Amino acid sequence: MQWYFVAALLTVLTSSQGILTTLSQSNGEYKYDYATVPFLAEIFKLAVSSLLLWRECKKSPLPKMTTEWKTVALFPIPSVIYLIHNNVQFATLTYVDTSTYQIMGNLKIVTTGLLFRMFLGRRLSNLQWMAIVLLAVGTTTSQVRGCGETSCESLFSAPIQGYMFGVLSACLSALAGIYTEFLMKKNNDSLYWQNMQLYTFGTLFNMARLIVDDFRGGFENGPWWQRIFNGYTITTWMVVLNLGSTGLLVSWLMKHADNIVKVYSTSMAMLLTMILSLFLFNFKPTLQLFLGIIICMMSLHMYFAPPNMLLDMPLTVKPEEEKLVEVSVDRRPHS
Amino acid sequence: MQWYFVAALLTVLTSSQGILTTLSQSNGEYKYDYATVPFLAEIFKLAVSSLLLWRECKKSPLPKMTTEWKTVALFPIPSVIYLIHNNVQFATLTYVDTSTYQIMGNLKIVTTGLLFRMFLGRRLSNLQWMAIVLLAVGTTTSQVRGCGETSCESLFSAPIQGYMFGVLSACLSALAGIYTEFLMKKNNDSLYWQNMQLYTFGTLFNMARLIVDDFRGGFENGPWWQRIFNGYTITTWMVVLNLGSTGLLVSWLMKHADNIVKVYSTSMAMLLTMILSLFLFNFKPTLQLFLGIIICMMSLHMYFAPPNMLLDMPLTVKPEEEKLVEVSVDRRPHS
Repeated sequence: MQWYFVAALLTVLTSSQGILTTLSQSNGEYKYDYATVPFLAEIFKLAVSSLLLWRECKKSPLPKMTTEWKTVALFPIPSVIYLIHNNVQFATLTYVDTSTYQIMGNLKIVTTGLLFRMFLGRRLSNLQWMAIVLLAVGTTTSQVRGCGETSCESLFSAPIQGYMFGVLSACLSALAGIYTEFLMKKNNDSLYWQNMQLYTFGTLFNMARLIVDDFRGGFENGPWWQRIFNGYTITTWMVVLNLGSTGLLVSWLMKHADNIVKVYSTSMAMLLTMILSLFLFNFKPTLQLFLGIIICMMSLHMYFAPPNMLLDMPLTVKPEEEKLVEVSVDRRPHS
Repeated sequence: MQWYFVAALLTVLTSSQGILTTLSQSNGEYKYDYATVPFLAEIFKLAVSSLLLWRECKKSPLPKMTTEWKTVALFPIPSVIYLIHNNVQFATLTYVDTSTYQIMGNLKIVTTGLLFRMFLGRRLSNLQWMAIVLLAVGTTTSQVRGCGETSCESLFSAPIQGYMFGVLSACLSALAGIYTEFLMKKNNDSLYWQNMQLYTFGTLFNMARLIVDDFRGGFENGPWWQRIFNGYTITTWMVVLNLGSTGLLVSWLMKHADNIVKVYSTSMAMLLTMILSLFLFNFKPTLQLFLGIIICMMSLHMYFAPPNMLLDMPLTVKPEEEKLVEVSVDRRPHS
């Protein structure tokens, strides 16, 4: 399977996630406990991965599976990072409004690039760095509050702690992605085996969250396993399946492509959601959305297009000496 | 003299032009007739060019000066284009508000690129095209009406004629620039001799405008030569000198660099004006200005940086065959 096909599918599913989640609300409220959604999605991913691993085991050669504790012990770490990230996110939101929070979220694109370089040692060309910055600028542009919008606070009006937590949040979010890529590419274990480990810990951490919520709420609505499907509709189930599927695609991309591809997928998904919202929820198109789309498209092209296409550059090799030029084009993830 | 030095100077002067013009008003009104400013600026440019040509004539070899009518007859054409442009501009403003007009003005960047390719036959790389589009997107982003601003009309709400006139205006503005470049580079005549021809016609056309204004106004304030300096202050004279100087710099760039360099200079000047206005006129900084500046800087780098710097691209020449590679870097205007 080609990585760009998976990336495109991820864009579509991530985009539907936002729309399905909105549709799953009745009168702007969740009738179900939203914390059950990621838990069930983890279960779904675990089930799919187990099934696929089982199928793989029936064929020869047998899939490679490292079972030594030293390796398995690395798999809860992404869940731990996400747990910390969730708390930082919560802290950030006590200082800044959601709109500023959303705008700061685009910083994640740049921090992913930085950690990608620092921890995975992947080199990016000057132009690719520019593309990454432009992607962040493009998504931010599309979110600039238009004229006539109600919340209209001045730029940089929140307390400094808010921005510091925002930066920390962007770093943690990037770190989780980069660490997962490191895990998946660390050895050539079967992807499904790696997934099983990842999702087992994911399930446990999400279950822990439900339990903690129960204790915090004083078991008002009974323990989580009794109320887990309360208020579920067909749309809620679609949200669960959709979230699970995006998780599986991200995991595939971490193994066969990289974090930057994922970042492009999810950024494009954000724009796609905004475009679809124009039609579905009768939002008004803004100039900044239009500009943001152009910027992100340019960024996409700059990052992934082969250099000779970008430069139209005749490598004018002097014909009389019959030279062959080999340009190293190690810019795309392997499919 | 290096082209980028001249371009930087043009940026500074163009930027001061906006600020000086604002400062030359008293209580938001012009106490002088603004139409006299371009007229006097043409006179100033004509005087400077004559002086420089005269100095050139004293040295040997004598400057090249084509005086045949066929060539001289080409020099009033820019003035004619500007005359048509002014009227189209006026027509556009009857359909759209000034803010939309200003935003549509950025289209000039793209039309200049297109006419540059079509009429001057200059090839641009894929990346340079992207840079040009990004420059237009960047300047537009910086102008997005922020939240809380008074005029808050919806996008694309003006009648279609407004947009058509806007596009026509952008084409005419680009055409004037491209035609001037063609004129200046057509032969290797002395720049000052070419300037003299250009500015003689410029002076005549501007004088014609003053006369037409007089007739329209029924000579209420007397003929133009009697009231020409009415209301002039030291700031007004600075506006005149500044406008004249920018004209001379543009002319130099048309001869020794090109229209794209000029477009970058004036776009950067717009951003510089916005930054200076923050301090001088206590404007509030907006997120979109910040984003616009980043986009334009990226665009500048993409257009002018040497390709090997952008790509960090090791041209991995196989060492055993000792090949020499010659990459044609015909991307910058000649200094």
